[in-house]
Amino acid sequence: MREKLMTMLEARKEEMIAIRRHLHAHPELSYHEEKTAAYIADFYQRKAVDVQTDVGGNAVIVTINDASSGDTLALRADFDALPIEEETGLPFASTSPGVMHACGHDAHTAYLMVLADCLIELKAEIPGTIKVIHQHGEEAPPGGAKFIMETEALADVDHIIGIHVFPDRPAGEVAYRSGAAMAGGTQFKLIIQGVGGHGSSPHKANDAIVAGAYFVTTLQTILSRRVNPFEAGAITVGSFDGKGSFNVINDAVTLEGDMRYMTTGLFEVLSKELHQLVNGLEELFGVQTTLTLFEGCPPVYNDPELTSSVVDYLTTGIGDYLTDVVESPMLTGNEDFAYYTQKIPGCFFYIGCRPKGIVNNVVYDNHHPKFDIDEEAISVAAKAVGEVVCGYFGIE
Amino acid sequence: MREKLMTMLEARKEEMIAIRRHLHAHPELSYHEEKTAAYIADFYQRKAVDVQTDVGGNAVIVTINDASSGDTLALRADFDALPIEEETGLPFASTSPGVMHACGHDAHTAYLMVLADCLIELKAEIPGTIKVIHQHGEEAPPGGAKFIMETEALADVDHIIGIHVFPDRPAGEVAYRSGAAMAGGTQFKLIIQGVGGHGSSPHKANDAIVAGAYFVTTLQTILSRRVNPFEAGAITVGSFDGKGSFNVINDAVTLEGDMRYMTTGLFEVLSKELHQLVNGLEELFGVQTTLTLFEGCPPVYNDPELTSSVVDYLTTGIGDYLTDVVESPMLTGNEDFAYYTQKIPGCFFYIGCRPKGIVNNVVYDNHHPKFDIDEEAISVAAKAVGEVVCGYFGIE
Amino acid sequence: MREKLMTMLEARKEEMIAIRRHLHAHPELSYHEEKTAAYIADFYQRKAVDVQTDVGGNAVIVTINDASSGDTLALRADFDALPIEEETGLPFASTSPGVMHACGHDAHTAYLMVLADCLIELKAEIPGTIKVIHQHGEEAPPGGAKFIMETEALADVDHIIGIHVFPDRPAGEVAYRSGAAMAGGTQFKLIIQGVGGHGSSPHKANDAIVAGAYFVTTLQTILSRRVNPFEAGAITVGSFDGKGSFNVINDAVTLEGDMRYMTTGLFEVLSKELHQLVNGLEELFGVQTTLTLFEGCPPVYNDPELTSSVVDYLTTGIGDYLTDVVESPMLTGNEDFAYYTQKIPGCFFYIGCRPKGIVNNVVYDNHHPKFDIDEEAISVAAKAVGEVVCGYFGIE
Amino acid sequence: MREKLMTMLEARKEEMIAIRRHLHAHPELSYHEEKTAAYIADFYQRKAVDVQTDVGGNAVIVTINDASSGDTLALRADFDALPIEEETGLPFASTSPGVMHACGHDAHTAYLMVLADCLIELKAEIPGTIKVIHQHGEEAPPGGAKFIMETEALADVDHIIGIHVFPDRPAGEVAYRSGAAMAGGTQFKLIIQGVGGHGSSPHKANDAIVAGAYFVTTLQTILSRRVNPFEAGAITVGSFDGKGSFNVINDAVTLEGDMRYMTTGLFEVLSKELHQLVNGLEELFGVQTTLTLFEGCPPVYNDPELTSSVVDYLTTGIGDYLTDVVESPMLTGNEDFAYYTQKIPGCFFYIGCRPKGIVNNVVYDNHHPKFDIDEEAISVAAKAVGEVVCGYFGIE
Repeated sequence: MREKLMTMLEARKEEMIAIRRHLHAHPELSYHEEKTAAYIADFYQRKAVDVQTDVGGNAVIVTINDASSGDTLALRADFDALPIEEETGLPFASTSPGVMHACGHDAHTAYLMVLADCLIELKAEIPGTIKVIHQHGEEAPPGGAKFIMETEALADVDHIIGIHVFPDRPAGEVAYRSGAAMAGGTQFKLIIQGVGGHGSSPHKANDAIVAGAYFVTTLQTILSRRVNPFEAGAITVGSFDGKGSFNVINDAVTLEGDMRYMTTGLFEVLSKELHQLVNGLEELFGVQTTLTLFEGCPPVYNDPELTSSVVDYLTTGIGDYLTDVVESPMLTGNEDFAYYTQKIPGCFFYIGCRPKGIVNNVVYDNHHPKFDIDEEAISVAAKAVGEVVCGYFGIE
Repeated sequence: MREKLMTMLEARKEEMIAIRRHLHAHPELSYHEEKTAAYIADFYQRKAVDVQTDVGGNAVIVTINDASSGDTLALRADFDALPIEEETGLPFASTSPGVMHACGHDAHTAYLMVLADCLIELKAEIPGTIKVIHQHGEEAPPGGAKFIMETEALADVDHIIGIHVFPDRPAGEVAYRSGAAMAGGTQFKLIIQGVGGHGSSPHKANDAIVAGAYFVTTLQTILSRRVNPFEAGAITVGSFDGKGSFNVINDAVTLEGDMRYMTTGLFEVLSKELHQLVNGLEELFGVQTTLTLFEGCPPVYNDPELTSSVVDYLTTGIGDYLTDVVESPMLTGNEDFAYYTQKIPGCFFYIGCRPKGIVNNVVYDNHHPKFDIDEEAISVAAKAVGEVVCGYFGIE
Repeated sequence: MREKLMTMLEARKEEMIAIRRHLHAHPELSYHEEKTAAYIADFYQRKAVDVQTDVGGNAVIVTINDASSGDTLALRADFDALPIEEETGLPFASTSPGVMHACGHDAHTAYLMVLADCLIELKAEIPGTIKVIHQHGEEAPPGGAKFIMETEALADVDHIIGIHVFPDRPAGEVAYRSGAAMAGGTQFKLIIQGVGGHGSSPHKANDAIVAGAYFVTTLQTILSRRVNPFEAGAITVGSFDGKGSFNVINDAVTLEGDMRYMTTGLFEVLSKELHQLVNGLEELFGVQTTLTLFEGCPPVYNDPELTSSVVDYLTTGIGDYLTDVVESPMLTGNEDFAYYTQKIPGCFFYIGCRPKGIVNNVVYDNHHPKFDIDEEAISVAAKAVGEVVCGYFGIE
Repeated sequence: MREKLMTMLEARKEEMIAIRRHLHAHPELSYHEEKTAAYIADFYQRKAVDVQTDVGGNAVIVTINDASSGDTLALRADFDALPIEEETGLPFASTSPGVMHACGHDAHTAYLMVLADCLIELKAEIPGTIKVIHQHGEEAPPGGAKFIMETEALADVDHIIGIHVFPDRPAGEVAYRSGAAMAGGTQFKLIIQGVGGHGSSPHKANDAIVAGAYFVTTLQTILSRRVNPFEAGAITVGSFDGKGSFNVINDAVTLEGDMRYMTTGLFEVLSKELHQLVNGLEELFGVQTTLTLFEGCPPVYNDPELTSSVVDYLTTGIGDYLTDVVESPMLTGNEDFAYYTQKIPGCFFYIGCRPKGIVNNVVYDNHHPKFDIDEEAISVAAKAVGEVVCGYFGIE
C-alpha cells in the first residue's frame, strides 16, 4: 500500500497546490473560520467517512475506519489565519484586507485534505483508525486545541501527529526533536503603585520607579538561583512604562513581561517565584502591586518512543522525496499542539519550506507580511505524514 | 527719615495695589516683557534718577544717587509672568490668554516701584547709592539675573536685597534663612541604548531595561555613600520610559531626572558621580549611553553677616506692620537671585501673602492657576525693604 | 565677682595640671571608676557643700547653694577612661596596663574640680544654685548620663553646661554649634539565614550571600528616598561576613552596621525603614532574619537660646584667655551628654587642646594611644565655663 | 570469545575484590601514588604486553597487541585517593592516616587490572589494539589526564572508554548520557579594593562592601540575560568575606565563586562576561579589582555515535549481570576524563555501587568518610567494559 499511497500523492500535487491557493486567497481569523470549515467539510461530504463539524468551535474531525480494532492515530492540521495585511504580491494573495495566511496553515490544510482522501480510498488496507483533525484557532489564545480537548472527540486516540512548515530549511528537509520541543509561554503584567511627589521631598512620596528598578534586578535571581540550571527557561521584562516628568516622583509604573519554559514544572517554579518576588516588593518598599498572568500554551512534548519511531519511518523517504531528517534545537515559539501532547503521546515535526530563488539571504519568517513558501513542501508534508501512517500501522 | 519713609509708604498703599493690578491684567512671558519694561521705565521717566533700560535683555536699572561716596545697595524685583491660564476669576485677571502672574512678580514690581519713588524723594538723606533692579526672565532658564550679571551694570554693588511673596504665611509675617536658603537644581536625561531581540534569546540581545534598572539602583549610592551626609541634596529619576512589548527585549530606554543641592560644591559632586555611574554602566552592560545635563540656577546663598543684620533691622517693625520674623527651613525651589549671590553678598527673604478668608485650608501655591495674594503683603514688602535700606545706611 | 574668679583660676592653673596628671596616671574603665570617684568625693569632703556619691553608679554630684531661690545650673565633667594601652611615653603615663585617659576626661575633671572649688568660695555672690556633676561611664553604652537621668538628682536643674577637649583646634579656641551638634548612633546586626547547598544546584538551596547583597543595595534607598534630604544621617554596613567556600552556597551571612542621625525623629525613620527592608527581604528571598539594634546615645541638641547666650558670654574672653569663638560643623561622634539635653536645655561646647610643637602636622585624635593635650586647655576650660556661670547668673 | 571472557571474569570476581581491598588499605594522595603505580606495573610484569610507566607522572599504560592493524581502543581507570580520614570501620580500611579511597578508584583499578589480564589472555582474538590506562591524579587539579594528554602516549587511540562507580544506583544498574555529560568548572577569586573610613563620612571613603554587593546583584544577569537559555550553567559566589566593624567602612572585600558549564563555549561566555562586569565595577564605583580564574576540568563530552553503540552493546547484558541501562541526567561534578574527550571520541559511563543493607536510606556519597560500595559492582564494571570491548571490535 505504501507504494500506492506515494504514487497517489505524487499524482495529486497540483490539487494540493490548488487547495492551498484557494485557502490562501480566502483567509479567516482565528475563531471566525466558518467558511474555511464549511469548505473542508464539503470536501469530505460524499466520502465514506464520518465527519464531525463544530467540534470545540469550528473544528472538523474526519474518522477513517471505525475504532472497532487496531490503534487510533490522529493527524492534525490547523486552518486559521492572522490579522496581517499581506505584502507578497502573489496572484492568489489574500482577498480579505488585513487578514493573511502568514503562518502556512493553508499548506497544512491542503496537504492533509488530499492525504486524508487518499487514505480513505485505501482504508480497507489500514488495520486501525485514523482521525483527521482540521483545527481552528491555533493563532489566538487559548487555542482551538484546548477546546477540542475539552470535548470527548479524541478520547479514543492512541497517538497524534502534527507538522508545521518553517522556512529556515529547504523543502525536502524534515526536522524533529524528542522530548521538550517547543516552549510554553506566559505573559505577565505588573502594576506597581507608589505615591507621587516632588523630587526634592522623596520622604513624602514613595518612588514607584525605584521600586520597579529593584524589582527588575531581583527578578534576575529567578533564573540564576531559583531554577535547576539544567532546565531551560527565560524571563524578559519587555516593557517598563514609567514615563513622567524630570522632577516629579512617579506614583506608578507598569511592567510587562514574558516567561518561556520547556517543562510545565518549570512554569510552576517561575510562577511561584514571580509571585514571591512581587509580595516581597510590596513589603520591601511599601508599594501596592497588581500582578496578572496570561497563561499561554504549555510546552510541546514529543513522546520519545513515538518520535524515535517517526524518525525511523521518515528516514525511509531520504533519497526519494526527502533530502534529510535532522534533529532540531528546542524552539521557543508557542504551539497549541501542546494541549494534545499533554494527554496523548504525540509527535510534532517540522517541514522545510524555504522559497526557492531567495535573494540576499532574505527569508521572511512566519508571521511576516511577505511570508511565502516553496509549494513543493506541501506534497513533502503529505508524503512524510503518509509514510508515518504506513509505518505506524505496519503497512508495507 | 525712617519715620517719614514709613508714613509715605503707608500713604501710597492704594497706589501699589493699583500698579499690581495693572501688571496682573497685562502679564508677559519671560524674555518677552517689552511692554512691562516700558511701563516701568516710563514710571521713572521724569524723576531725578539715572535709568538704564535693556540691561541684559529687558531689565530696567534705576540708580538713586551716584556712587561717589558710601556703599551701594541693590534692591531687586522680577517682573515676568508664567505660561498658565488664569483661573482666579478676579476682576483684574489676565487679559492675555495662557499667560498669568501666578508667582507674585506683579506684587514684587509694584512694591519696589513705589518704594523706589519714595527713596528718590528722600535721596538727599541717604549716605550712599541704591540700585533698583527691575528684572526680566526669572521664570525661564537660564534666568534674567544671569544675563544682567554678564553686564557691568552691578559691578559696583556692595550688597543686594530681594524678596519673594509666599502664601504659606500670612501677610505680616516675614521669614529668612542664613546661608544656603534655596536649592540649586539640574535636570538630566540619559538614553541607554542596548540591542533589541526576542525574549527567548536574551544572549543575542542586550536588554536596555535591565541596564536601566541596575542604573537606578546604583544611582541611590550617590546620596547614600558619595556625599557628605551633612550636605543636603536629592536625586530623582522622574521618568523611566521603557515602554515596549511583553516579549520583545527593549533596545533603548530614556530616563529623565533631577538633582537638587544646597551648595555648588555638592552640585559638582553629584554631577561627577552621575557621569562616573553612566560610564560604569556602559562598561558593565556593554550599552551605549547619552547623558545630557540641563543646569538650572545655583543655590541661593544668603550672606550670614548681612542676613543677621537684615533680621535685626526687620525686628524693629514687629508690632507695627510685622507680626513676626521667623527662620525658614531651606527651600527646594530654584530662584535666579542665586546668580547675584554668587558674586555679591546678598539676602533674599520671604514675605507672607496668604489670602484672607481661606476656605477649608485650601491655599493655592505659586504657579497654580488660582494663585492669589493678600494685597496687604505689598505694602508689608515695601516697608520691610524700606526698613532694611534705613538700617543698612544707618539712617534713623 | 567675675574678675575675682578669673584671678583665682589663673592662680590655680598648676593645681589643675597636677590633678589632671594624677588622674591620667590612674585611669579606670567605665563603670569601674571607684577610686576616681572616691578621689573626687574626698576633694569636696570638708567643703561647705552637699556631696552625693554613687548617683546612678559612680557619679558624684556636688550642690553649691541650695535651690531655695534663683535658677539651677548644672556643670558636667566625665571621669572614666578607655581600654587602650597608652603609648605617649609621658612621665605621668597610665600605671594601669591597658587602660588610658585617651579622651581627655582627666582634663575635664581637673578643670571642674578647681572651678567648683572657686565657686564654692564665692558662693555667697551667686544668686542661684550650681550642681557640679562628676560623671562616670561616658565611654561605654548606655552611658552614665542615662543612669543619672533615671534618678531624681537633676530634677530641679534649669540648664546644663558641658565641654569636651578636642585637638583639632589650638588651646585658646572655643567652638560651639547651636541645635543638632553631635550625632546619635545605633548599631545593628542582621543575620540572614538561607539554606546551604552545592553551587551547581542553586534551586535546592537558598543563597544567603545573594540575599545579603540585595539587602545592601536596597539599604541605600533609605537615605536616598526615605528621609528628608535636609536631615543629616548615614548608614554603613561595616561588616559583611559571608566567608565560605568557592562552590558551596552559603547558608547564612551576618551583617553589622551603624546608623548616625542628627535628630531622634530621623532615628525613628531609619529604624522603621530598616525593619521594613528586613521584613521585605524575608518575603522576597524566603530567608529567615534576625535583626538586633543596639541603640546608642541620642543626638546632642544644644538649646539655641542658651547657646546664643553662651556664645555671648564667651566672646567676653576673647583677647584675654581666648583667641576665638567659632561655629563648629556638626560632629558625628556620640556623647552621652545627649541624655541630659533630652530633658534639660543644655549647651555642650568644645575646647581646643592641640598640643604645641606638633611635628609634620601629625595630631593624634581622641582614642589614639598617643593622644595628648596642651595642658593650657585645662585652665581655658575652667575660665570659659566660669565665664558662662557669671553670664548665666548675671554676675558682673 | 565474548562467552569465554564473561566466564573468565565471573571466575575472577574474588581476585578483583582482593585487589580492591589491598588498594583500599593502602591509599595514596594524588600525584604521590608511587607505590600504587609500582603495584600495578608489577602485576603486568611477566605478561605479554608493553608496559609504559611514569607516563605524564605516575600513570601506567599497558598496550595489548600492537597497533599494526585494526582500531585502537583505550580503557581508563584512575587510582589516586583523597585527603579524607576514613570512618567506615571496614576490616580493610585505610592504613594511611588522613588518606582514603573515598571515591571508588580502588574498585576502578581492580576491575580494570583483571579485565586487562583476561584480554591479554584472549588477545589473539582481538582484531585491534587495546590501551589500558591506569591513571594518577584524578582528584587534584589540573588532573593526571591533562598531563597524559600532553605526552604522545595516546596519539594513536581511536576511542576511549571510562567508568565511575556511583552509589545512587544499585549494583547491576548502568547509566549513560550522550553528549554533554559532566560539567566543566572554573573557580574565581575577586578582590575589591576600596578606601576605608568612618561610617559617618562615607564621602571620604569608598565602601568596598557596597561595591561587592552591587557586583553580586549584577552577576545574576550573566545567567539571566547573557547566556543562551538552552545551555546549562551556574555561577555561585560561595564566599563574601567582608568581615569588619560595625561603623568602619570596609576598605576591601574578597569574593570567591564557581562557574559550572556543560560546553566549553559556555565557559567562554561566562568568563568574558565576568571580566566585563568586573571592569564595569571598577568604573562604576572607582574601586580597584583583582580577578583570578582557576580553570578546572572542561565538560565531559560523550561522543553521541560511540555512546549510542556503547548503549547497544550494554543492553546485551541486561538480564544477565545487568538489571538496567538507563539514561542519566547531566552531572555537575568535574572529571578529568574530559581532557581525553577533548581530543579522542570517548564514552564515560556510570556503574551503580549502592551498598546492600542500607539503613534509613542513608547512602554515603563519594568523598564522604563513610563512603562504601557493593563489591558486586566491581565485576559488573569488568563485564560491562568487557562487553563494550567485544562490541567495539565486533567480536562474537
